[in-house]
Amino acid sequence: MATEKGEVLLLDLWVSVFGQRCRIALAEKGVEYEYREESLLDKSPLLLKMNPIHKKIPVLIHDGKPVCESLIIVQYIDEVWTNNPLLPSDSYERAKARFWADFVDKKIYECGTKLWRLKGEAHDEAKKDMIEILKLLEGELGDKKYFGGETFGFMDIAFVPFTAWFYSYETLGNFSTENECPKLVAWAKRCMERESVTKSLPHPYKVYEVVVKLKKRFGVE
Amino acid sequence: MATEKGEVLLLDLWVSVFGQRCRIALAEKGVEYEYREESLLDKSPLLLKMNPIHKKIPVLIHDGKPVCESLIIVQYIDEVWTNNPLLPSDSYERAKARFWADFVDKKIYECGTKLWRLKGEAHDEAKKDMIEILKLLEGELGDKKYFGGETFGFMDIAFVPFTAWFYSYETLGNFSTENECPKLVAWAKRCMERESVTKSLPHPYKVYEVVVKLKKRFGVE
Repeated sequence: MATEKGEVLLLDLWVSVFGQRCRIALAEKGVEYEYREESLLDKSPLLLKMNPIHKKIPVLIHDGKPVCESLIIVQYIDEVWTNNPLLPSDSYERAKARFWADFVDKKIYECGTKLWRLKGEAHDEAKKDMIEILKLLEGELGDKKYFGGETFGFMDIAFVPFTAWFYSYETLGNFSTENECPKLVAWAKRCMERESVTKSLPHPYKVYEVVVKLKKRFGVE
Repeated sequence: MATEKGEVLLLDLWVSVFGQRCRIALAEKGVEYEYREESLLDKSPLLLKMNPIHKKIPVLIHDGKPVCESLIIVQYIDEVWTNNPLLPSDSYERAKARFWADFVDKKIYECGTKLWRLKGEAHDEAKKDMIEILKLLEGELGDKKYFGGETFGFMDIAFVPFTAWFYSYETLGNFSTENECPKLVAWAKRCMERESVTKSLPHPYKVYEVVVKLKKRFGVE
Protein backbone atom coordinates (compact mmCIF):
# COMPACT_ATOMS: atom_id res chain seq x y z
CA MET A 1 0.00 0.00 0.00
CA ALA A 2 1.36 3.43 -0.93
CA THR A 3 2.30 5.72 1.96
CA GLU A 4 4.13 9.02 1.73
CA LYS A 5 7.27 7.00 2.44
CA GLY A 6 6.55 4.38 -0.22
CA GLU A 7 4.77 1.04 -0.60
CA VAL A 8 4.55 -1.14 2.52
CA LEU A 9 3.65 -4.81 2.49
CA LEU A 10 3.78 -7.24 5.41
CA LEU A 11 4.07 -10.99 4.85
CA ASP A 12 2.75 -12.51 8.05
CA LEU A 13 0.69 -15.22 9.76
CA TRP A 14 -2.11 -14.25 12.14
CA VAL A 15 -0.94 -16.37 15.09
CA SER A 16 2.74 -15.36 14.87
CA VAL A 17 3.94 -13.40 17.92
CA PHE A 18 6.77 -12.12 15.75
CA GLY A 19 4.41 -10.86 13.06
CA GLN A 20 2.21 -9.26 15.73
CA ARG A 21 5.16 -7.17 16.88
CA CYS A 22 5.42 -5.67 13.39
CA ARG A 23 1.66 -5.06 13.19
CA ILE A 24 1.68 -3.26 16.54
CA ALA A 25 4.66 -1.11 15.55
CA LEU A 26 3.05 -0.16 12.23
CA ALA A 27 -0.22 0.68 14.01
CA GLU A 28 1.59 2.79 16.62
CA LYS A 29 3.14 4.78 13.79
CA GLY A 30 -0.10 5.00 11.82
CA VAL A 31 1.49 3.43 8.75
CA GLU A 32 -0.96 2.09 6.18
CA TYR A 33 0.16 -1.17 4.65
CA GLU A 34 -0.98 -4.23 2.81
CA TYR A 35 -1.22 -7.36 4.96
CA ARG A 36 -0.68 -10.68 3.24
CA GLU A 37 -1.35 -13.90 5.13
CA GLU A 38 1.16 -16.68 4.43
CA SER A 39 0.78 -20.41 4.91
CA LEU A 40 3.62 -22.26 6.63
CA LEU A 41 2.77 -25.37 4.64
CA ASP A 42 2.76 -23.62 1.27
CA LYS A 43 5.08 -20.61 1.38
CA SER A 44 4.57 -18.09 -1.39
CA PRO A 45 7.26 -17.52 -4.04
CA LEU A 46 7.40 -13.91 -2.80
CA LEU A 47 8.23 -15.01 0.76
CA LEU A 48 10.95 -17.39 -0.47
CA LYS A 49 12.39 -14.64 -2.67
CA MET A 50 12.25 -11.96 0.01
CA ASN A 51 13.66 -14.07 2.86
CA PRO A 52 15.80 -16.70 1.12
CA ILE A 53 18.00 -17.13 4.19
CA HIS A 54 15.44 -18.06 6.85
CA LYS A 55 12.31 -18.51 4.68
CA LYS A 56 10.24 -17.21 7.60
CA ILE A 57 7.56 -14.64 8.24
CA PRO A 58 7.33 -11.82 9.12
CA VAL A 59 8.92 -9.93 6.25
CA LEU A 60 8.33 -6.21 5.84
CA ILE A 61 8.68 -5.20 2.22
CA HIS A 62 9.24 -1.48 1.86
CA ASP A 63 9.41 -0.18 -1.70
CA GLY A 64 10.29 -3.68 -2.86
CA LYS A 65 13.13 -4.17 -0.36
CA PRO A 66 12.77 -6.79 2.37
CA VAL A 67 13.49 -6.40 6.07
CA CYS A 68 13.48 -9.65 8.07
CA GLU A 69 13.53 -10.67 11.75
CA SER A 70 10.86 -9.06 13.90
CA LEU A 71 12.98 -6.99 16.30
CA ILE A 72 15.02 -5.69 13.37
CA ILE A 73 11.79 -4.84 11.55
CA VAL A 74 10.45 -2.94 14.58
CA GLN A 75 13.70 -0.96 14.84
CA TYR A 76 13.54 -0.25 11.09
CA ILE A 77 9.95 0.98 11.40
CA ASP A 78 10.99 3.18 14.33
CA GLU A 79 13.83 4.70 12.31
CA VAL A 80 11.85 5.33 9.10
CA TRP A 81 8.64 6.62 10.69
CA THR A 82 9.95 8.87 13.42
CA ASN A 83 6.63 9.92 14.99
CA ASN A 84 5.77 8.24 18.31
CA PRO A 85 9.29 6.92 19.03
CA LEU A 86 9.39 3.31 20.22
CA LEU A 87 12.99 3.06 21.39
CA PRO A 88 14.01 5.38 24.25
CA SER A 89 16.12 8.40 23.28
CA ASP A 90 18.75 7.67 25.94
CA SER A 91 21.47 5.21 24.83
CA TYR A 92 21.54 3.34 28.13
CA GLU A 93 17.76 2.96 28.22
CA ARG A 94 17.90 1.83 24.58
CA ALA A 95 20.47 -0.85 25.47
CA LYS A 96 18.19 -2.01 28.30
CA ALA A 97 15.15 -2.21 26.01
CA ARG A 98 17.18 -4.24 23.51
CA PHE A 99 18.48 -6.50 26.29
CA TRP A 100 15.01 -7.39 27.56
CA ALA A 101 13.57 -7.83 24.07
CA ASP A 102 16.47 -10.20 23.37
CA PHE A 103 15.72 -11.99 26.66
CA VAL A 104 12.13 -12.55 25.49
CA ASP A 105 13.44 -13.97 22.20
CA LYS A 106 15.95 -16.26 23.86
CA LYS A 107 13.72 -17.56 26.66
CA ILE A 108 9.95 -17.41 26.33
CA TYR A 109 9.26 -18.86 22.89
CA GLU A 110 11.43 -21.92 23.45
CA CYS A 111 10.11 -22.50 26.95
CA GLY A 112 6.51 -22.12 25.71
CA THR A 113 7.17 -24.75 23.04
CA LYS A 114 8.53 -27.13 25.66
CA LEU A 115 5.33 -26.63 27.69
CA TRP A 116 3.09 -28.06 24.95
CA ARG A 117 5.65 -30.42 23.41
CA LEU A 118 7.03 -32.30 26.41
CA LYS A 119 5.63 -34.65 29.04
CA GLY A 120 6.53 -35.81 32.54
CA GLU A 121 9.58 -34.39 34.28
CA ALA A 122 10.72 -32.36 31.27
CA HIS A 123 7.29 -30.71 31.19
CA ASP A 124 7.45 -29.94 34.92
CA GLU A 125 10.88 -28.44 34.38
CA ALA A 126 9.50 -26.23 31.58
CA LYS A 127 6.68 -25.06 33.86
CA LYS A 128 9.19 -24.13 36.57
CA ASP A 129 11.32 -22.30 33.99
CA MET A 130 8.32 -20.42 32.58
CA ILE A 131 7.28 -19.11 35.99
CA GLU A 132 10.88 -18.09 36.68
CA ILE A 133 11.12 -16.28 33.30
CA LEU A 134 7.85 -14.44 33.93
CA LYS A 135 9.00 -13.45 37.42
CA LEU A 136 12.25 -12.03 36.01
CA LEU A 137 10.20 -9.98 33.56
CA GLU A 138 7.90 -8.83 36.35
CA GLY A 139 10.99 -7.82 38.34
CA GLU A 140 12.20 -5.67 35.45
CA LEU A 141 8.76 -4.08 35.03
CA GLY A 142 8.45 -3.34 38.73
CA ASP A 143 5.98 -0.54 39.42
CA LYS A 144 6.45 1.13 36.06
CA LYS A 145 3.49 1.67 33.74
CA TYR A 146 5.35 0.21 30.77
CA PHE A 147 8.77 -1.42 30.53
CA GLY A 148 10.37 1.84 29.39
CA GLY A 149 8.52 3.97 31.97
CA GLU A 150 5.54 6.15 31.11
CA THR A 151 5.55 5.41 27.38
CA PHE A 152 4.57 2.25 25.51
CA GLY A 153 7.64 1.23 23.52
CA PHE A 154 10.04 -1.29 22.05
CA MET A 155 10.19 -3.80 24.91
CA ASP A 156 6.41 -3.71 25.39
CA ILE A 157 6.00 -4.48 21.69
CA ALA A 158 8.53 -7.31 21.90
CA PHE A 159 6.76 -8.95 24.83
CA VAL A 160 3.05 -8.14 24.62
CA PRO A 161 2.19 -10.71 21.88
CA PHE A 162 3.18 -13.45 24.33
CA THR A 163 0.47 -12.31 26.74
CA ALA A 164 -2.09 -13.85 24.34
CA TRP A 165 -0.32 -17.14 25.18
CA PHE A 166 -0.61 -16.72 28.96
CA TYR A 167 -3.91 -18.63 28.99
CA SER A 168 -2.24 -21.49 27.12
CA TYR A 169 0.81 -21.48 29.40
CA GLU A 170 -1.45 -21.50 32.47
CA THR A 171 -3.64 -24.29 31.14
CA LEU A 172 -0.67 -26.40 30.07
CA GLY A 173 1.26 -25.74 33.27
CA ASN A 174 -1.65 -25.60 35.71
CA PHE A 175 -0.63 -22.34 37.34
CA SER A 176 -2.07 -18.84 37.61
CA THR A 177 -0.12 -15.99 36.01
CA GLU A 178 -2.32 -13.59 38.02
CA ASN A 179 -1.16 -15.19 41.29
CA GLU A 180 2.48 -15.58 40.26
CA CYS A 181 2.93 -12.23 38.49
CA PRO A 182 0.09 -9.78 39.27
CA LYS A 183 2.03 -6.74 38.03
CA LEU A 184 2.70 -8.40 34.68
CA VAL A 185 -0.99 -9.22 34.26
CA ALA A 186 -1.92 -5.62 35.11
CA TRP A 187 0.64 -4.40 32.53
CA ALA A 188 -0.85 -6.77 29.91
CA LYS A 189 -4.29 -5.28 30.61
CA ARG A 190 -2.91 -1.75 30.23
CA CYS A 191 -1.39 -2.71 26.89
CA MET A 192 -4.73 -4.16 25.78
CA GLU A 193 -6.26 -0.70 26.19
CA ARG A 194 -4.28 0.33 23.12
CA GLU A 195 -5.96 -0.17 19.78
CA SER A 196 -2.62 -1.07 18.18
CA VAL A 197 -2.41 -4.07 20.51
CA THR A 198 -6.06 -5.24 20.61
CA LYS A 199 -6.37 -5.28 16.84
CA SER A 200 -3.08 -7.18 16.43
CA LEU A 201 -3.47 -9.93 19.04
CA PRO A 202 -5.72 -13.00 18.73
CA HIS A 203 -8.06 -14.03 21.53
CA PRO A 204 -6.23 -16.30 24.03
CA TYR A 205 -8.78 -19.09 23.33
CA LYS A 206 -7.87 -18.94 19.62
CA VAL A 207 -4.23 -19.38 20.56
CA TYR A 208 -5.13 -22.34 22.77
CA GLU A 209 -7.00 -23.95 19.86
CA VAL A 210 -3.75 -23.77 17.88
CA VAL A 211 -1.86 -25.30 20.81
CA VAL A 212 -4.36 -28.19 20.97
CA LYS A 213 -3.93 -28.79 17.23
CA LEU A 214 -0.15 -28.72 17.55
CA LYS A 215 -0.28 -31.23 20.41
CA LYS A 216 -2.41 -33.52 18.26
CA ARG A 217 -0.14 -33.16 15.24
CA PHE A 218 2.93 -34.04 17.33
CA GLY A 219 1.13 -36.81 19.22
CA VAL A 220 1.47 -35.14 22.65
CA GLU A 221 -1.77 -35.86 24.46
CA MET B 1 39.41 3.63 33.46
CA ALA B 2 38.28 7.25 33.30
CA THR B 3 37.45 8.66 29.87
CA GLU B 4 35.85 12.00 29.11
CA LYS B 5 32.60 10.09 29.00
CA GLY B 6 33.18 8.32 32.32
CA GLU B 7 34.71 5.11 33.67
CA VAL B 8 34.74 2.12 31.32
CA LEU B 9 35.40 -1.45 32.42
CA LEU B 10 35.06 -4.61 30.33
CA LEU B 11 34.52 -8.00 31.97
CA ASP B 12 35.69 -10.47 29.38
CA LEU B 13 37.56 -13.69 28.57
CA TRP B 14 40.43 -13.65 26.05
CA VAL B 15 39.07 -16.44 23.81
CA SER B 16 35.45 -15.16 23.68
CA VAL B 17 34.37 -14.10 20.18
CA PHE B 18 31.64 -12.06 21.86
CA GLY B 19 34.11 -10.24 24.08
CA GLN B 20 36.40 -9.64 21.09
CA ARG B 21 33.58 -7.77 19.35
CA CYS B 22 33.46 -5.31 22.24
CA ARG B 23 37.26 -4.92 22.31
CA ILE B 24 37.34 -4.18 18.56
CA ALA B 25 34.51 -1.64 18.85
CA LEU B 26 36.21 0.12 21.78
CA ALA B 27 39.51 0.18 19.87
CA GLU B 28 37.84 1.56 16.71
CA LYS B 29 36.42 4.37 18.83
CA GLY B 30 39.70 4.95 20.67
CA VAL B 31 38.04 4.46 24.06
CA GLU B 32 40.42 3.75 26.93
CA TYR B 33 39.09 1.17 29.32
CA GLU B 34 40.04 -1.29 32.00
CA TYR B 35 40.04 -4.92 30.86
CA ARG B 36 39.28 -7.54 33.48
CA GLU B 37 39.74 -11.22 32.63
CA GLU B 38 37.05 -13.49 34.07
CA SER B 39 37.17 -17.22 34.71
CA LEU B 40 34.20 -19.29 33.57
CA LEU B 41 34.85 -21.74 36.39
CA ASP B 42 35.00 -19.09 39.09
CA LYS B 43 32.89 -16.10 38.09
CA SER B 44 33.62 -12.91 40.02
CA PRO B 45 31.00 -11.43 42.36
CA LEU B 46 31.09 -8.32 40.11
CA LEU B 47 30.13 -10.36 37.01
CA LEU B 48 27.28 -12.08 38.87
CA LYS B 49 26.07 -8.72 40.15
CA MET B 50 26.33 -6.94 36.80
CA ASN B 51 24.76 -9.69 34.67
CA PRO B 52 22.48 -11.55 37.09
CA ILE B 53 20.21 -12.73 34.25
CA HIS B 54 22.68 -14.54 31.99
CA LYS B 55 25.80 -14.54 34.26
CA LYS B 56 27.93 -14.31 31.13
CA ILE B 57 30.77 -12.23 29.77
CA PRO B 58 31.17 -9.80 28.09
CA VAL B 59 29.75 -7.07 30.26
CA LEU B 60 30.58 -3.43 29.58
CA ILE B 61 30.35 -1.39 32.76
CA HIS B 62 30.04 2.30 32.01
CA ASP B 63 30.01 4.58 35.05
CA GLY B 64 28.90 1.63 37.15
CA LYS B 65 26.03 0.64 34.86
CA PRO B 66 26.16 -2.69 33.02
CA VAL B 67 25.43 -3.33 29.36
CA CYS B 68 25.19 -7.01 28.40
CA GLU B 69 25.04 -9.07 25.18
CA SER B 70 27.80 -8.34 22.68
CA LEU B 71 25.79 -6.92 19.77
CA ILE B 72 23.87 -4.68 22.17
CA ILE B 73 27.19 -3.57 23.69
CA VAL B 74 28.61 -2.73 20.25
CA GLN B 75 25.50 -0.68 19.40
CA TYR B 76 25.75 1.06 22.76
CA ILE B 77 29.41 1.91 22.16
CA ASP B 78 28.49 3.23 18.71
CA GLU B 79 25.78 5.45 20.16
CA VAL B 80 27.82 6.85 23.06
CA TRP B 81 31.09 7.42 21.21
CA THR B 82 29.92 8.85 17.92
CA ASN B 83 33.30 9.19 16.16
CA ASN B 84 34.00 6.54 13.46
CA PRO B 85 30.39 5.32 13.14
CA LEU B 86 30.05 1.53 13.06
CA LEU B 87 26.43 1.21 11.95
CA PRO B 88 25.54 2.66 8.54
CA SER B 89 23.64 5.96 8.56
CA ASP B 90 20.93 4.66 6.20
CA SER B 91 18.05 2.83 7.96
CA TYR B 92 17.83 0.07 5.36
CA GLU B 93 21.58 -0.58 5.41
CA ARG B 94 21.39 -0.57 9.20
CA ALA B 95 18.65 -3.22 9.12
CA LYS B 96 20.82 -5.31 6.76
CA ALA B 97 23.86 -5.03 9.04
CA ARG B 98 21.71 -6.10 12.00
CA PHE B 99 20.23 -8.99 10.00
CA TRP B 100 23.62 -10.44 9.08
CA ALA B 101 25.06 -9.93 12.56
CA ASP B 102 22.02 -11.79 13.91
CA PHE B 103 22.61 -14.51 11.28
CA VAL B 104 26.17 -14.95 12.60
CA ASP B 105 24.80 -15.25 16.15
CA LYS B 106 22.14 -17.76 15.21
CA LYS B 107 24.22 -19.95 12.94
CA ILE B 108 28.00 -19.96 13.24
CA TYR B 109 28.62 -20.38 16.95
CA GLU B 110 26.24 -23.31 17.32
CA CYS B 111 27.49 -25.00 14.15
CA GLY B 112 31.11 -24.52 15.25
CA THR B 113 30.31 -26.17 18.57
CA LYS B 114 28.76 -29.13 16.76
CA LEU B 115 31.96 -29.48 14.71
CA TRP B 116 34.12 -30.17 17.75
CA ARG B 117 31.43 -31.79 19.89
CA LEU B 118 29.89 -34.40 17.58
CA LYS B 119 31.09 -37.49 15.76
CA GLY B 120 30.06 -39.56 12.74
CA GLU B 121 27.11 -38.50 10.62
CA ALA B 122 26.13 -35.61 12.90
CA HIS B 123 29.68 -34.26 12.54
CA ASP B 124 29.53 -34.59 8.73
CA GLU B 125 26.21 -32.76 8.78
CA ALA B 126 27.77 -29.94 10.82
CA LYS B 127 30.66 -29.71 8.33
CA LYS B 128 28.20 -29.41 5.43
CA ASP B 129 26.22 -26.77 7.34
CA MET B 130 29.36 -24.78 8.18
CA ILE B 131 30.45 -24.61 4.54
CA GLU B 132 26.93 -23.56 3.54
CA ILE B 133 26.85 -20.84 6.23
CA LEU B 134 30.23 -19.51 5.14
CA LYS B 135 29.12 -19.49 1.48
CA LEU B 136 25.99 -17.51 2.38
CA LEU B 137 28.19 -14.98 4.15
CA GLU B 138 30.55 -14.86 1.17
CA GLY B 139 27.52 -14.26 -1.07
CA GLU B 140 26.48 -11.30 1.07
CA LEU B 141 30.03 -9.89 1.05
CA GLY B 142 30.35 -10.27 -2.72
CA ASP B 143 33.01 -7.97 -4.15
CA LYS B 144 32.68 -5.36 -1.44
CA LYS B 145 35.69 -4.37 0.65
CA TYR B 146 33.76 -4.76 3.89
CA PHE B 147 30.24 -6.02 4.58
CA GLY B 148 28.88 -2.48 4.69
CA GLY B 149 30.84 -1.33 1.61
CA GLU B 150 33.98 0.80 1.83
CA THR B 151 33.95 1.21 5.60
CA PHE B 152 34.74 -1.33 8.33
CA GLY B 153 31.62 -1.53 10.49
CA PHE B 154 29.07 -3.34 12.63
CA MET B 155 28.73 -6.55 10.63
CA ASP B 156 32.51 -6.87 10.17
CA ILE B 157 32.90 -6.55 13.94
CA ALA B 158 30.16 -9.15 14.54
CA PHE B 159 31.78 -11.69 12.24
CA VAL B 160 35.55 -11.11 12.25
CA PRO B 161 36.26 -12.81 15.63
CA PHE B 162 35.07 -16.07 14.08
CA THR B 163 37.83 -15.87 11.46
CA ALA B 164 40.29 -16.81 14.23
CA TRP B 165 38.28 -20.07 14.38
CA PHE B 166 38.57 -20.80 10.64
CA TYR B 167 41.73 -22.85 11.21
CA SER B 168 39.88 -24.95 13.82
CA TYR B 169 36.81 -25.38 11.59
CA GLU B 170 39.04 -26.46 8.69
CA THR B 171 41.05 -28.86 10.80
CA LEU B 172 37.96 -30.37 12.43
CA GLY B 173 36.02 -30.54 9.13
CA ASN B 174 38.93 -31.33 6.80
CA PHE B 175 38.11 -28.61 4.27
CA SER B 176 39.78 -25.45 3.01
CA THR B 177 38.06 -22.12 3.68
CA GLU B 178 40.41 -20.58 1.10
CA ASN B 179 39.11 -22.98 -1.58
CA GLU B 180 35.45 -22.79 -0.53
CA CYS B 181 35.25 -19.06 0.19
CA PRO B 182 38.24 -17.16 -1.24
CA LYS B 183 36.54 -13.75 -0.96
CA LEU B 184 35.77 -14.31 2.70
CA VAL B 185 39.40 -15.22 3.39
CA ALA B 186 40.56 -12.10 1.54
CA TRP B 187 38.14 -10.03 3.62
CA ALA B 188 39.48 -11.61 6.82
CA LYS B 189 43.02 -10.62 5.77
CA ARG B 190 41.88 -7.06 5.08
CA CYS B 191 40.31 -6.89 8.54
CA MET B 192 43.57 -8.18 10.05
CA GLU B 193 45.33 -5.10 8.68
CA ARG B 194 43.45 -3.08 11.29
CA GLU B 195 45.13 -2.68 14.65
CA SER B 196 41.74 -2.87 16.39
CA VAL B 197 41.32 -6.40 15.05
CA THR B 198 44.88 -7.78 15.34
CA LYS B 199 45.22 -6.72 18.95
CA SER B 200 41.81 -8.20 19.86
CA LEU B 201 41.97 -11.63 18.18
CA PRO B 202 44.03 -14.61 19.40
CA HIS B 203 46.27 -16.60 17.06
CA PRO B 204 44.27 -19.36 15.31
CA TYR B 205 46.61 -21.98 16.80
CA LYS B 206 45.76 -20.70 20.29
CA VAL B 207 42.07 -21.13 19.49
CA TYR B 208 42.73 -24.66 18.25
CA GLU B 209 44.54 -25.47 21.53
CA VAL B 210 41.33 -24.49 23.34
CA VAL B 211 39.28 -26.68 20.97
CA VAL B 212 41.59 -29.65 21.67
CA LYS B 213 41.17 -29.10 25.43
CA LEU B 214 37.38 -28.86 25.04
CA LYS B 215 37.31 -32.11 23.07
CA LYS B 216 39.31 -33.82 25.83
CA ARG B 217 37.08 -32.42 28.57
CA PHE B 218 33.95 -33.64 26.79
CA GLY B 219 35.52 -36.99 25.81
CA VAL B 220 35.27 -36.37 22.05
CA GLU B 221 38.45 -37.84 20.59
